[in-house]
Amino acid sequence: MKKFINDPEKVVDEMLEGLLIAHSDQLKSVRSDNRALVRADAPVSGKVAIATGGGSGHLPLFLGYVGKGMLDGVAVGDIFASPSSQQMLDTTRSIHGGEGVLYIYGNYGGDVMNFDMAAELADLEDIRVETVVATDDVASMPQGYEHQRRGVAGMFYLYKLAAAKAEQGASLDEVKRIAEKANANVRTMGVALTPCILPAVGRPTFEIGEGEMEIGMGIHGEPGIQRGIIQTADEVANTLVSTILKDMPIEKGSDVSVLINGLGATPLEELYIFYRAVHKLLEQKGIHVYSRYIGEFATSMEMAGLSVSILRTDEELRSLLDVPFVTPFRIQN
Amino acid sequence: MKKFINDPEKVVDEMLEGLLIAHSDQLKSVRSDNRALVRADAPVSGKVAIATGGGSGHLPLFLGYVGKGMLDGVAVGDIFASPSSQQMLDTTRSIHGGEGVLYIYGNYGGDVMNFDMAAELADLEDIRVETVVATDDVASMPQGYEHQRRGVAGMFYLYKLAAAKAEQGASLDEVKRIAEKANANVRTMGVALTPCILPAVGRPTFEIGEGEMEIGMGIHGEPGIQRGIIQTADEVANTLVSTILKDMPIEKGSDVSVLINGLGATPLEELYIFYRAVHKLLEQKGIHVYSRYIGEFATSMEMAGLSVSILRTDEELRSLLDVPFVTPFRIQN
Repeated sequence: MKKFINDPEKVVDEMLEGLLIAHSDQLKSVRSDNRALVRADAPVSGKVAIATGGGSGHLPLFLGYVGKGMLDGVAVGDIFASPSSQQMLDTTRSIHGGEGVLYIYGNYGGDVMNFDMAAELADLEDIRVETVVATDDVASMPQGYEHQRRGVAGMFYLYKLAAAKAEQGASLDEVKRIAEKANANVRTMGVALTPCILPAVGRPTFEIGEGEMEIGMGIHGEPGIQRGIIQTADEVANTLVSTILKDMPIEKGSDVSVLINGLGATPLEELYIFYRAVHKLLEQKGIHVYSRYIGEFATSMEMAGLSVSILRTDEELRSLLDVPFVTPFRIQN
Repeated sequence: MKKFINDPEKVVDEMLEGLLIAHSDQLKSVRSDNRALVRADAPVSGKVAIATGGGSGHLPLFLGYVGKGMLDGVAVGDIFASPSSQQMLDTTRSIHGGEGVLYIYGNYGGDVMNFDMAAELADLEDIRVETVVATDDVASMPQGYEHQRRGVAGMFYLYKLAAAKAEQGASLDEVKRIAEKANANVRTMGVALTPCILPAVGRPTFEIGEGEMEIGMGIHGEPGIQRGIIQTADEVANTLVSTILKDMPIEKGSDVSVLINGLGATPLEELYIFYRAVHKLLEQKGIHVYSRYIGEFATSMEMAGLSVSILRTDEELRSLLDVPFVTPFRIQN
């Protein structure tokens, strides 16, 4: 196992400790196990607070999205494992600024169960909690079963847009409406070339043959919809974009935002080659790219692969895309 | 070869095309081959301009450092190959705002030869050019031969500090002085776990056995100083930090800036575990970390590995570290 770690059992603890040392001006821990982290200035009084969470192993997801103009707090679990409801509750308590809390997280069984329980516990303390579950992965379930789809990199847009709305002083209902609107208008599809290695297991989570790729694979290695020989970047881009557009038609003349997300080991050079293909495919259909994000946003440790997310926008969503944010993972100086 | 590319011969062209499409508001090309790229607002009148360049395959180096508060232009070559003197000259002409141009680049034979020639050609056009060559890799040559060392991730500090000085309206001599001061006060040492694959070659540039690592390896796979079984993150950190501090003593009570650079495939989780170790080692010696950068700054495509750079600071360098910058690779919204 080629990793820079100490004890495989302490990977998450030491990662969190390093992160808190590095970003103590922006983040603080509200539990002795460091599994609940919030903005250093939390709670922000008079603002709807937004929390997320999930398993570790996806940096910058989730911790990288805490900050001004972004999220208020996160609960993090072990590698690929849900945090507990108590960890989520502690995050919730620490970020509540009097205007309620919105949970935004990916649609995975453990997370749903624990966030729902945390919401019930918060309710007992008179903290109003609403929930929007991200279900952007088109490959995970067919049409008609959208609400059963997994949440992957497109969740970034739910965060970004809802947080921008909260930053403007909107109510919990309004912030929730924006998160739901973002979820309804974003689709993601990924492709993996290599597996990742769970530190505590020490071997790859699955196998992909030399010269093979898997289209539609999830960020924990969930099976995709098509395995085959590696195609060119242009061919793969065509498959992903056309699947997304079949699932979510976008009218000619529309503006979209595009997120090209590296899953871990894929070089930025390849993400730009991929963006080039996606941009051209959209342009050919008369779809304009209003904004784009290219880099690592939701990883699977050292997995080689990428995903494409497309957000269908209107004037409201575009104005929220323009709101700046500051997080530990976006250096300013 | 597991890469998202089309034609191995077109990797750089298509990457540059994708990059220019994505960041047309911030970057522009000044040659039909796109190998000379400058700030969209270049030339900036009345400001010393800074140019860099080198081979492709190291994103965000070099292109990611062009922008306000950072560099003015770059010339880029093929994967791991120097750009031509003509490409550098075209960059130089396009960024010259009347106050001269500073070249900052890593110490590699082809780059030195071509940048020197470009400087001579610029001189014929009455553009004053000065040069500072980055030599931060302690592992590449022993003490006494510092000027023959390679330039690696620590070059980021030369860029950042010199650019901040230029932004403040300083003269070419002053900006050069800062770049030299940064180079004299920064040391880097890296460690690799896996090789990278040149697209046009299709196989790894070298082999490292399963369970082995190589300490001191360069960002093009240049041999390191010690190959052995993989050690823990804490042990590797100790080797790198103590080698750096032996080469460049840092007094108790000093302030430093630390850069933990991922070489490509190494997950951010591991970089934070590594930062934790580096921070603790410095703290034990009474050295305070004034600022830190953790992420990918100078990669070697999909190489797994990392490097540590330590910048010894004084009040002047710290005030320059605080100057904000905006580049295509640092999203603001």
